Amino acid sequence: MTTPTRRQLANAIRFLAADAVQAANSGHPGMPMGMADIAEVLWNDYYRHSPSNPHWFNRDRFILSNGHGSMLQYALLHLAGYDLPLQELKNFRQLHSKTAGHPERHETPGVETTTGPLGQGFANAVGFALAEKLLAQRFNREGHAVIDHRTFVFMGDGCLMEGVSHEAASLAGTWGLGKLVCFWDDNKISIDGNTDGWFTDDTPARFEAYGWQVVRNVNGHDPVEIKTAIDTALKTADKPTLICCRTTIGFGSPNKAGKESSHGAPLGKDELEATRAALEWPYGPFEIPADIYAGWNKVEAGKALEAEWNALFDAYAAQYPEQAAELKRRASGELPADFAAQADAYIAKVQAEGPVIASRKASQNAIEAFAPLLPELVGGSADLAHSNLTLWKASKSVSSTDPNANYVYYGVREFGMTAIANGLALHGGFVPFDATFLVFSDYARNGVRMSALIPAHAIHVYTHDSIGLGEDGPTHQPVEHLASLRYIPNNDVWRPCDAVESAVAWKQAIVRQDGPSCLVFSRQNLPHQPRTDAQVGEIARGGYVLADADGAPDVILIATGSEVGLATQAKATLDAQGIKTRVVSMPSTDVFDRQDAAYREAVLPKAVRKRVAVEAATRDFWRKYVGLDGAVIGMTTFGASAPADALYKHFGITVDAVVEAAKSL
Amino acid sequence: MTTPTRRQLANAIRFLAADAVQAANSGHPGMPMGMADIAEVLWNDYYRHSPSNPHWFNRDRFILSNGHGSMLQYALLHLAGYDLPLQELKNFRQLHSKTAGHPERHETPGVETTTGPLGQGFANAVGFALAEKLLAQRFNREGHAVIDHRTFVFMGDGCLMEGVSHEAASLAGTWGLGKLVCFWDDNKISIDGNTDGWFTDDTPARFEAYGWQVVRNVNGHDPVEIKTAIDTALKTADKPTLICCRTTIGFGSPNKAGKESSHGAPLGKDELEATRAALEWPYGPFEIPADIYAGWNKVEAGKALEAEWNALFDAYAAQYPEQAAELKRRASGELPADFAAQADAYIAKVQAEGPVIASRKASQNAIEAFAPLLPELVGGSADLAHSNLTLWKASKSVSSTDPNANYVYYGVREFGMTAIANGLALHGGFVPFDATFLVFSDYARNGVRMSALIPAHAIHVYTHDSIGLGEDGPTHQPVEHLASLRYIPNNDVWRPCDAVESAVAWKQAIVRQDGPSCLVFSRQNLPHQPRTDAQVGEIARGGYVLADADGAPDVILIATGSEVGLATQAKATLDAQGIKTRVVSMPSTDVFDRQDAAYREAVLPKAVRKRVAVEAATRDFWRKYVGLDGAVIGMTTFGASAPADALYKHFGITVDAVVEAAKSL
Repeated sequence: MTTPTRRQLANAIRFLAADAVQAANSGHPGMPMGMADIAEVLWNDYYRHSPSNPHWFNRDRFILSNGHGSMLQYALLHLAGYDLPLQELKNFRQLHSKTAGHPERHETPGVETTTGPLGQGFANAVGFALAEKLLAQRFNREGHAVIDHRTFVFMGDGCLMEGVSHEAASLAGTWGLGKLVCFWDDNKISIDGNTDGWFTDDTPARFEAYGWQVVRNVNGHDPVEIKTAIDTALKTADKPTLICCRTTIGFGSPNKAGKESSHGAPLGKDELEATRAALEWPYGPFEIPADIYAGWNKVEAGKALEAEWNALFDAYAAQYPEQAAELKRRASGELPADFAAQADAYIAKVQAEGPVIASRKASQNAIEAFAPLLPELVGGSADLAHSNLTLWKASKSVSSTDPNANYVYYGVREFGMTAIANGLALHGGFVPFDATFLVFSDYARNGVRMSALIPAHAIHVYTHDSIGLGEDGPTHQPVEHLASLRYIPNNDVWRPCDAVESAVAWKQAIVRQDGPSCLVFSRQNLPHQPRTDAQVGEIARGGYVLADADGAPDVILIATGSEVGLATQAKATLDAQGIKTRVVSMPSTDVFDRQDAAYREAVLPKAVRKRVAVEAATRDFWRKYVGLDGAVIGMTTFGASAPADALYKHFGITVDAVVEAAKSL
Repeated sequence: MTTPTRRQLANAIRFLAADAVQAANSGHPGMPMGMADIAEVLWNDYYRHSPSNPHWFNRDRFILSNGHGSMLQYALLHLAGYDLPLQELKNFRQLHSKTAGHPERHETPGVETTTGPLGQGFANAVGFALAEKLLAQRFNREGHAVIDHRTFVFMGDGCLMEGVSHEAASLAGTWGLGKLVCFWDDNKISIDGNTDGWFTDDTPARFEAYGWQVVRNVNGHDPVEIKTAIDTALKTADKPTLICCRTTIGFGSPNKAGKESSHGAPLGKDELEATRAALEWPYGPFEIPADIYAGWNKVEAGKALEAEWNALFDAYAAQYPEQAAELKRRASGELPADFAAQADAYIAKVQAEGPVIASRKASQNAIEAFAPLLPELVGGSADLAHSNLTLWKASKSVSSTDPNANYVYYGVREFGMTAIANGLALHGGFVPFDATFLVFSDYARNGVRMSALIPAHAIHVYTHDSIGLGEDGPTHQPVEHLASLRYIPNNDVWRPCDAVESAVAWKQAIVRQDGPSCLVFSRQNLPHQPRTDAQVGEIARGGYVLADADGAPDVILIATGSEVGLATQAKATLDAQGIKTRVVSMPSTDVFDRQDAAYREAVLPKAVRKRVAVEAATRDFWRKYVGLDGAVIGMTTFGASAPADALYKHFGITVDAVVEAAKSL
C-alpha cells in the first residue's frame, strides 16, 4: 500500500459525495467538494473522537451547520470507521436509510445535531461549547481535566446571513468560548448566485466586533494554511475563533466549480467523469481503495484516545468519587434516583397549601424546589428574568467562573437562546430551560421545532400567556401561539391552571427525556383548585376531570390555564340551574392525546356532545374536542391594549359567556 | 411668552411620558426620558412632516423601533399638533384609546408602523428607505425631486441584540440607503440590568462592517452634539448612518436615572415629584404651558412644507403627466382600473389551457401575467429564486439604478425579508411579495404576524409546501405550518390545487388591501381540474364544490393543494361503489370562513356528517370542518427524507386511504 496524498484523501470525500448525489439524483455536491480539504486536515490531524463509540463523553464535537452538505459528514463518518456502511451512502436520501437529505442526529451515529435550517447548527455549537466550559468549570480538578474537548463547526455564507448567527456569535464572544472553532466556507456562492449582490458584510470585522479571534484569508484548499490556522485557533483559550477559508464550491469539477450549478443538483454523469479525470481519480462510483480507507480510519486511534481518557477518569474517580459519580450520572442523562419522589412530595405540598398566585410565580417556586435536586438544570431568559421569573436563589451567571454557574443571561435573543439551549441539551450533562414571553416564541419558532425534531430535552418557559398580560397590547398578546406550538410534532405544551398543575408541568418536562416541553404561564394570579390525591396524580395525564357532575354529565366544560377558574365558576351556575356539568382541566392536550382510549373516553365520553371549550386563544383549535356541535369561548382576533379585566370582558371570555354557551347547545 | 430652552422642550416629553405611565400604572418611562433630547432636536430642527396631514406622501418617516417607549412618540405627535389630544395621553394603555401600550399604526395618526417586537421597526425602516430609493429612481426627473425624504429610526440595545437587526442592517449597507438615519439609544441598560453581562458587541465596528457610516460617542443629552451628528448623516448620500448616542435611561429622575428600575414601571408619585424638582418643571401632570406648545407645534410649518411640495409636484405633473398620474395612483394604493378584469381574463385562459405543472410554476406564470399590469409589484426571495420561482422576465435587481428595479435578492434572511417587505408595503407605492420554503416561514414567523396585525399589504410566497418536497427531509418539510399560519388573525392563507387556483390566489392576494396573504405552492406537478365558469368564480370564496355527487352527497371529501387530486380520484372509486361523493376544494379556509352562512351551508351541509379531510399536514386542524365524526388523512409526525412518492405512501396519504376513510364512517 502506498501512502495517499492529502489531496487524494480529500478526493475520497469529493467522490463519495458527488457519486451519492448522482445516485440519489438529488442533493448538494458543491459544498463537500469545496470543504473536503479542510475536513481532511481537521479530521485526520486534530479531531479527537472514537468512531467505535460515538457517545464517548469527552469527544470533540463536529457540527455541520451548512447541513445541505450532508454527504461531507456521511463521507467523513464512513471513512473514519463509524457504523455507517457504504450501502447507507449508496442509499443517500432514501426511505429508512441512515443518510437523510440533511444530517439527523436520531438517524446517524456521529451526527451531533440535526442541521439544515441555516445558522442553527452554529448556534447549537455555541451551546455545546458553553456546556463544555460549564462542565469543566464544575468538575475539573488540578491535574484532572476530565472535561476538555473542542467544538468544531463548518458554516457557509447562508449561516452567516441568518440573524441567528448574530445572536449566537455575540454570546460566544461575550462568554469567551475559546474551545469553539468555526470554519467559514467563503465560496462567494449562494443559491441565487454570486453573493456580491446580497452579502457584502466584512465578516471578519463583524466577528472581531463580537470579540472573536479571526484568522483571515486562509486558502481552504491548502493543507498547510489550514493547519496553521487551526494551530492559531488552538493556541487561544479565551476567545472563539473564526477561520475564514476561501474555497471553490464544487472543487475539481471542470465546468461547474465556482458556480451555483454545483450547489444543489447532481453534477451529471458526464461532468462526474470529467471531474474524475481532472482530479485523477481512477476509481468507480463508491469505490474507495484500501490505502485511502487506511489513511482515514480512526477506529484504533479513537480507542486509544478513549482508553487514555478512561485512565484519566479512573484517577479522577479515585480522588473525587462523588464528583465522578455525579459527572457519570449527568453524562448519562439519568435524573437523580429520588427526583420523582421528591417532586411528588413537593406537588402534594403545593396542593395542600393552595397558593393563589400567578402561574409564572408558581413556576419560579417549582424551579426553586427542583433546582437543588438537579445540578444539571441550567436556566435563562431573553432579558426577561424578572418578568418570566426564571431566577432562583442559587442562580449564578454562566459568565462567572463559579463551579455552580447555572444561569444564562441571554439578552434579547430568543432564537439564539433556543438554539443554544438545544446545544446544551444535546451535549449532555445539562437540562436547559429558556424563557421569554409566549408571543415571542415566534422569534424562536424554528428553534422550538428543532428541539422536537432532533429531539432535544429542552424546556421552553413562556409567560404572559394571553390577553391577560394586559396593557402591553396586541404586539405582546399571544393568540395563535398555543395552538401553533401544540401542532409541532413531539412537542409537549403545558398550560397549567394553578400552582399545582404548574409544579406537575415542571416535573413532567424534566422527566420527559425524548423531546422538548413548552411551559406556558400566566402573568396574572390564578385561583387554587381543590383536588383529591387521585386527581393530583391525573394531572400528569394531560387532561382530567377536575370537578364532576352529580351523575352523568349533561355538559362538559374543557378549559386550560387561567380559564379553568372561569369554567369552575360556570359549573356552579349551571349546576344550580340543574344542568349537570363536568369540568375537564386540560393542561396538556399533547399528553392527553397520548393516553389510552379508555382513559380518554372516561374523561370525555363520546356520548356527551354538549361540550364547551374555553381558552383565551385561537378558538378553532378546540374543535378537535368539541366537534361541530360544541361551542368554544376564545379569541378570533388580535388582542388590544387595556387592563386584563377589561380585555376579558371586551373579548367576551367570561363566566357568563361560558354559561350561555353551555345552555345554547 | 418666553422662548423655552431646548431642555425645557425636551422635558415636556419627559413629563408627558412619566405622567401618562403613572396614570396608567403601567408602561415604560425610562426610554422617553432618555431619548427626549434627541427627539427634540430631530423633530424641531430636521424632521419634515405635516401634522395636519399624516399621509402627505413625501413626508419623512419616523419609526420607533424600541416601541415600548411609545409615550415618547405619543408626546411628540401631540406636541407637534397631530390629531392626538391630551385626553388620549391621559388614557394611555386604556381600552379604545389611541395610545396603546406599543405604537400601533392602525390606531394612531402619525405612527408609521406598529412596533414593540424588537428589531422589527428597524427592519421595517429599511423597507421604508428602500421604497423611497426605488420611487425616487423611478419617478424623479432632473429638477423634479418629487420623492425625496428620509427615514429616521430610534432603536435600543434590544433591537441591536435581535438577529433581525443583523439581516436588515446588512441589506441596508449593501443597498447604500443614504437616507436612512438611525439613532442608537446606548444607555447600557436592558430589562435584566446593566448590559455588560450580555451585550459586549462593538456595535459601531459591527455597523461599519455592514458598510454603514457610524457617528460614535454622541452625548445624547447635548443638542449641539446631536445636531452635528445629524448634519454628518445628512451629508452622506451613499451609506446609511448609525448615530451612537450615549444616554441616561430615566434622565432627570434623581433615584432611578441610569437604572433598570426606570425602564418598565411607573416612577412612583414621590419619585415623579423629585424628578419635577430636579428638572425644574413646575407644571402639574399633563400640564404643558403655551410657550412649550408653541415651541413644538409644526402644523403651519408642515402645511408650508406640503404646499412647497405640492407646487413641485404640480410642475412635475405639467411636464410629466403620465408619471405624475402613475405616482399618484401608486401612492394612493389603488390598483390599475383594469387589473381585476385582466386578471379574470388570465384566469379563464389558464382554466381553458389546463396546464399540468407544479403550483410554484403556476405562481411564476401568474407573476409573469400580472407584473406587467402592476409596476408597484416588487418581488424577492430569501436566496431561493430558482426554487421559489419568483423571478419573471422583467425582474431587475433593486441594487441597480434601473428605474424599473423591482426584485430584491434578500439573501438567506427570511425574517429581515419579511419585515422589510412590511416596510415596503407601509411606505406606500408598492405591493411587495417575498418568498422562501414554507418550513422557513418559521424564521419569519413574527414578521408574518406583524403583517397581519399592522396590517400590511404584503404577500408571502411559500413553496415546497409538504412532504411532497421529498429528499431534503424533515428539516425542510412543513407539517404544522399551514395550520399555524391560518391561525394568525387577519392572515389569508391560500394553498391552490392547480394552476387556476394559483392564479386566483395571486389575484386575491393583490386585491386584498387590508392585510397579508400567504400563498403556498407545491414543488411537484399537480393535475389540472375541470371547472365550469361558475366554479372558477367560486374559487375566490376560499372553498367550493369542485366535483359534486349525483344528488345529495353521502360523503364529502375536503382537500387542498396537492391532495385535491387524491380526493377527485377517491371520488371516482367511491362513486363507482355507489357512494355519492362530493369533493370540496378549500384553497383558503380563512376566506371560506368569511363567507355568509348560506354559502357555507351550501358547500358543507350541516346534515352531511360523513366528511373526510385530506391535507399532507397537521390533521387536527381539520376537525373544525369534519368534527368528531369525520376522518382526516394527514400528518401526525415529522416527515422523512425520501422521494415524494415514497413518502406519500409511507405516511398513508393515498387515494386508497381516502376511500377507506370515507367507507369507514
